[in-house]
Amino acid sequence: MIYLDHAAATPTSKKALKAMEPYFADLFFNPSAPYISANHVRQDYEKAKDEIAHAIGAKGADLVMTSGATESINLAFNILEPNAEVLISAVEHKSVIEAAKKFNCNTINVDKFGRVLINDFKKKLSKKTQFVSVCLASGELGTIQPISEIAAIIKDEVLRRKLAGETTPLYFHCDASQGIGILEAKVGRLGVDLLTINSAKVYGPKGVGALYVGHNVKLKPMTVGGGQEMGLRSGTENVPGVIGFAAAIKDAEGHLNAERKRLEKLKTILKNELKDVPDIIFLGNPKYQLANFVPISVPGVDAERIIFALENEEVYLSTGAACSASKGVKSVTLTAIGLDDAAIAGSLRITMGKLNDEENIKKAGELIKNAIISEKQRV
Amino acid sequence: MIYLDHAAATPTSKKALKAMEPYFADLFFNPSAPYISANHVRQDYEKAKDEIAHAIGAKGADLVMTSGATESINLAFNILEPNAEVLISAVEHKSVIEAAKKFNCNTINVDKFGRVLINDFKKKLSKKTQFVSVCLASGELGTIQPISEIAAIIKDEVLRRKLAGETTPLYFHCDASQGIGILEAKVGRLGVDLLTINSAKVYGPKGVGALYVGHNVKLKPMTVGGGQEMGLRSGTENVPGVIGFAAAIKDAEGHLNAERKRLEKLKTILKNELKDVPDIIFLGNPKYQLANFVPISVPGVDAERIIFALENEEVYLSTGAACSASKGVKSVTLTAIGLDDAAIAGSLRITMGKLNDEENIKKAGELIKNAIISEKQRV
Repeated sequence: MIYLDHAAATPTSKKALKAMEPYFADLFFNPSAPYISANHVRQDYEKAKDEIAHAIGAKGADLVMTSGATESINLAFNILEPNAEVLISAVEHKSVIEAAKKFNCNTINVDKFGRVLINDFKKKLSKKTQFVSVCLASGELGTIQPISEIAAIIKDEVLRRKLAGETTPLYFHCDASQGIGILEAKVGRLGVDLLTINSAKVYGPKGVGALYVGHNVKLKPMTVGGGQEMGLRSGTENVPGVIGFAAAIKDAEGHLNAERKRLEKLKTILKNELKDVPDIIFLGNPKYQLANFVPISVPGVDAERIIFALENEEVYLSTGAACSASKGVKSVTLTAIGLDDAAIAGSLRITMGKLNDEENIKKAGELIKNAIISEKQRV
Repeated sequence: MIYLDHAAATPTSKKALKAMEPYFADLFFNPSAPYISANHVRQDYEKAKDEIAHAIGAKGADLVMTSGATESINLAFNILEPNAEVLISAVEHKSVIEAAKKFNCNTINVDKFGRVLINDFKKKLSKKTQFVSVCLASGELGTIQPISEIAAIIKDEVLRRKLAGETTPLYFHCDASQGIGILEAKVGRLGVDLLTINSAKVYGPKGVGALYVGHNVKLKPMTVGGGQEMGLRSGTENVPGVIGFAAAIKDAEGHLNAERKRLEKLKTILKNELKDVPDIIFLGNPKYQLANFVPISVPGVDAERIIFALENEEVYLSTGAACSASKGVKSVTLTAIGLDDAAIAGSLRITMGKLNDEENIKKAGELIKNAIISEKQRV
């Protein structure tokens, strides 16, 4: 198998699994139970939260643990009253798009590489804007967004409102589901109020995520009950899941630079293999792109046929984002960067990761090239 | 260790863990990805949902998978508009109480055993009631509620409204977190529209639950995004978690009667050991009580001191529900059954399960008896 869909899912690493194991059967206690063994589990859980938080330059107490990025995103938006004015980028994940639809939402345009146009953002940021949500990197293009630049503009507006005696709040949320574990992403440097992260994208278990909540943010709970997570997200803590997430993200943080360099090298090899494919377009921003992303388009070919052809060779890749891929809806992101229907229909998302090395990437390059060329000949 | 807090948490069984394992590392694909290996994971996931549903007499397509009982309960209540009239029993879990607080909520009284008073329910059920939530069994007393009797009254009211041309909807939700795996609980026989179940109480992994949604129920999603779970609960599916839940609940279903009989026998042994404790009260309904529950009270003693004393003997038990135990709030349930402050302060919740056998229950009985007696002598 040559797996090229790391943006859709990653295997849980051996380290993460090993860290989780004791918490399934031996240390299974409810962290809220009154005896000391349960309290030890509580302490291990809090330590794991600290480790996760450390990876984004925060403290455990700043994190609300959730069941994944989608819940984190919905929880972030839950801060808003109906009719609140919201700005999101044109290359957000479906969960941001859908969560934003509940409010009065406007979209910030992107350039042809999928990067937010700062001038368009400035133009659309109004006195009434209450929430801005921009991803750390686009899930379809890998294009890294100018988060700290956006944050600086937001800070200016917050200051202006304060001086003018205006009370409309303004929060900046960043969906960092794609990018964490590959890019350094510290909340202080990014300048965000809310940050979504996800275990399943960094070789941790599925079903676990977190929302970083800045000190100035008054979040409203979406799920009420026993009062866990400082009352912001009730429900018995998913102890093994959070422990596994911590082990995975800690491991990623320890190898961030080396892994990024390794992936950049693989990207060069793969692009070199593919560059001779007639009509190929490499999508995304050539300068600001996640090291593991090689999104391409070959206008005129049917990407789904390519995927099925490659499946026979045990090469797995995707069109667009996996979670909307099975629904046959036209990609919002690819439309936003100005691709026409033929280019969208011919687009493939190749995302590399731990399951790749020079050998299998070289082979994948050949197989993808051959599959596209024979599909072009058929057409 | 003698663990007597199975209502707070259960260890993940070997069967459940073994079933989950392949889905962490080998079959880790995103079920929505377009290649066949991902589709196989999707099929395994759907099969697991069918198995979970089977345990409650439903189909996989009737279930919305969640991160646990608290989310399921919140999702069930999310069907309501603000100001909707809601009835809940006086012995609900904190997540039902808190979720109900968002609406116009009234409480159905219980008898001194913690069982819903049908006449009080009939009196409080009005033309405007939109939602009734009663647990399958109380999490503090183990008292089994007359669910099908309540359901019959609700059905009559639904019919009356229909004939009268009234359009106010009326739904019946049952929190079956306590009871599943010990009692037979089939949605058809219970007559409920919505049923909450939880993996972590039946020796499955934490962080997984489900909400059964009857065909006549138009649920509203709380978490939007990729459109998973029929659009009712977005987010990449927690495949290993759901597979583990299925293995656990299937196992429980296979041994339901034998395990209940075994637990009833343990209960007899334990009650026999404890009956000589001066002033002891056995709480809950002697006839309608979960086989694994032995809630007691010894008015005048400090239950927390008993718990700490027993902890030194490696006997673990709880006061009230674990998830509110650490907060020192007076139990709503114990107040509802008419216990005075001294009886509440002297109450212990003993809940048995797979980690118990005749030998350790006999020993636990002695140790608990001795701990209470020496505490009484101190006072």
